[in-house]
Amino acid sequence: MTGKTLAERILSEKSNTDARAGDYVEAEVDAMLTHDVTGPLTFEVFRGVTDGDGPLADPENTVITIDHHAPADGVQAANNHNAVRDFAAEFGAVQFDVGDGICHQLLVEHGFAEPGDLVVGADSHSTTFGGLGAFGTGVGSTDLGTAMATGDLWFRVPDSVRFEVEGTLPDGVYAKDLILRFIGDVGFDGATYRAAEYGGSAVQDLPIHERLVLSNMAIEMGGKAGLVEPDERTARFLARQTGRTESSFDVSLAPDDDADYAAVHTYDAADLAPQVSKPSNPENAVDVDAVAGTPVDQLFVGTCTNGRYEDVRVVADILDGETLAPGTRMVVVPASKAIYRRMLDTGVFDTFVDAGAIVQSAGCGPCFGTHDGVLGDGDVCLATANRNFPGREGSMDSSVYLASPATVGASALYGEITDPRTVETTRYDDDVVTPAEAQP
Amino acid sequence: MTGKTLAERILSEKSNTDARAGDYVEAEVDAMLTHDVTGPLTFEVFRGVTDGDGPLADPENTVITIDHHAPADGVQAANNHNAVRDFAAEFGAVQFDVGDGICHQLLVEHGFAEPGDLVVGADSHSTTFGGLGAFGTGVGSTDLGTAMATGDLWFRVPDSVRFEVEGTLPDGVYAKDLILRFIGDVGFDGATYRAAEYGGSAVQDLPIHERLVLSNMAIEMGGKAGLVEPDERTARFLARQTGRTESSFDVSLAPDDDADYAAVHTYDAADLAPQVSKPSNPENAVDVDAVAGTPVDQLFVGTCTNGRYEDVRVVADILDGETLAPGTRMVVVPASKAIYRRMLDTGVFDTFVDAGAIVQSAGCGPCFGTHDGVLGDGDVCLATANRNFPGREGSMDSSVYLASPATVGASALYGEITDPRTVETTRYDDDVVTPAEAQP
Repeated sequence: MTGKTLAERILSEKSNTDARAGDYVEAEVDAMLTHDVTGPLTFEVFRGVTDGDGPLADPENTVITIDHHAPADGVQAANNHNAVRDFAAEFGAVQFDVGDGICHQLLVEHGFAEPGDLVVGADSHSTTFGGLGAFGTGVGSTDLGTAMATGDLWFRVPDSVRFEVEGTLPDGVYAKDLILRFIGDVGFDGATYRAAEYGGSAVQDLPIHERLVLSNMAIEMGGKAGLVEPDERTARFLARQTGRTESSFDVSLAPDDDADYAAVHTYDAADLAPQVSKPSNPENAVDVDAVAGTPVDQLFVGTCTNGRYEDVRVVADILDGETLAPGTRMVVVPASKAIYRRMLDTGVFDTFVDAGAIVQSAGCGPCFGTHDGVLGDGDVCLATANRNFPGREGSMDSSVYLASPATVGASALYGEITDPRTVETTRYDDDVVTPAEAQP
Repeated sequence: MTGKTLAERILSEKSNTDARAGDYVEAEVDAMLTHDVTGPLTFEVFRGVTDGDGPLADPENTVITIDHHAPADGVQAANNHNAVRDFAAEFGAVQFDVGDGICHQLLVEHGFAEPGDLVVGADSHSTTFGGLGAFGTGVGSTDLGTAMATGDLWFRVPDSVRFEVEGTLPDGVYAKDLILRFIGDVGFDGATYRAAEYGGSAVQDLPIHERLVLSNMAIEMGGKAGLVEPDERTARFLARQTGRTESSFDVSLAPDDDADYAAVHTYDAADLAPQVSKPSNPENAVDVDAVAGTPVDQLFVGTCTNGRYEDVRVVADILDGETLAPGTRMVVVPASKAIYRRMLDTGVFDTFVDAGAIVQSAGCGPCFGTHDGVLGDGDVCLATANRNFPGREGSMDSSVYLASPATVGASALYGEITDPRTVETTRYDDDVVTPAEAQP
């Protein structure tokens, strides 16, 4: 019998079985998540399963956010917000409201995901928690409504595919470039129902906020989860977020040397260039050179992928004292209120306003084309987002390119896609949002 | 022959006739305005009138804003934004973009309306400019498209109705309370196609930002215009905004003592209480006592009526160091980028964020129910806005109450409509946004 992957290790522990890829297991869930879009159906299922009475299996770890259409961009959205508020009040779930931020970021900031945890969310980017060594995965509202009642859920244990990056990333190349490259190499269905496992010295050198980017976008290649082995950085990050001691976090979780992978992709970090995914699929990743000079109308900085403080700060560093290229507009939507608050405190907010950008309250922003800067016919957007499918940010006749914050920042100066290696860029370590800032 | 009202004086001057109520005159227009909603039809008319070639009669005084759906809250909105940008570039009009602010405020900040001017806008709240002693009025896109080509427009000279307020306003009573009271007294059609003329010592004591409130809401009683006699305050305000000398502004404009009014309404300022207009018509104005204790879900601070720096500061003074009542949310949308910038510089912005409010980029915000906090079924909003017709801010089953910034601020502390005289309130003089801050 071979050793286990990270996914097999976690699902073994959570199901009290010797779980192997292909097995079906019933596993205990550590935290559950739904939001203003998927919430109403989840609530309906939950009420059905519990004859309308509840209770929640674990109310303190059942989180409901108002983020996707926040502030409300229509009557249906507003009604859904009220449904979230009513449900959370009735059953005692943890609830975040308009302006608090994006679900995935809030769970990270508030310590709902720890190494070895199993976290499920009625949102596809619930893979994000893998950056902390948790098996995070998106499930349907039906599954989630049931899990909220029972506290567990069945899984088919996924095969794993390993992405191994050795060496040191060049200046201007970030986790976002890595994941776009991975997706480009395997395709948008290249890891369908597989756990992506990210490793190697370049990955272990990444600060937590960049690890979260790798895990967040695992779903863009079909991944069931996207996992990074936890370590001392993980413990330090979580200790700061939660106020607990570093030693209270078990970061011993690791894959076995002889674990069995469906595929292993290896990279030399030194060879990697900044990536841009062309319209209209994240798998259309190319070196930035291939699209440099493409005119852009709008720049979007935010989302659960790259809306963290370190991300907006990378952009602000580039824009500091400069203004957006004429005819170019920029929308900045931080991933949480804590980030927004910190932007105010550190001058990053001023830098954006002075440069001519607009900064909206924390949430999902224009990521899926409902408000905060929807694209019109023919508009071209360069975004730090995770998806660029046709019409994703507005018109079916608009185009979205995906890139790192550094690439977006450099492009803002010139109004066209620009190689970030032509400007001075910064790489931030674990410059986390402090617990005090993260209080709801 | 009797003397002339303010409206008759201005239209006489602009038409080079002895214009009297009921006359039809062709008058020269000093500034013209359209925006992202009314712009596209205006452009079509203009192109039709000029065989597609233009030119604009007065490009330097033709202003086109992107404010009503800014940032774009849908594909149609985004397409309209692009239509504005394309038209302004083609014909050399003055153009403001997403986040710059609301049309009426921008014209005031940038000196497009002076005492005695005739300013027309394809927006009903173009009456706003009367606060500076200009005849401001809303016209249809067809009329505006024609005026943009010819530089003049026909008018029927309106009858005038005078609102005369003597004495000193009590603490907690503002221009917004005055205008709600006026509208309540005469009804929503009580001044249809009449010019409202505001006077008396209490009105002449008002700083410019409060005079603009009176004029802005003249349309809510059907007014063709809403005029305040200009004076040294007007000259001082405009000098600061434009960088010109005070003496360069002719503020001699005044109604004749024997001018003929269709009606005169007189008030003793000392008798006035804070007003709230109940759903769903601005004419439903009552003393705040009558509705105090009504629970509110959302508070909205902004609009062309009460989204100026002094307005948001009155609210921030009340919220300073406090937090919103539990279960209550607040959306703040300043009327211009200059105001937004000043909120950042003076700590007003921080006060709102610390209190739990969200602040969105400058524009019309949720005023007409398309984004930035649309109301759901059963939601109750207390707003500094100008209209509360059924469904105005969202669901046909939502309710909007209108009040002054002070009343909204006090109500935010308790989550129910609250008499602002129960808290400490401030009254700001001409604390104008400085020219440097108002640069686009």
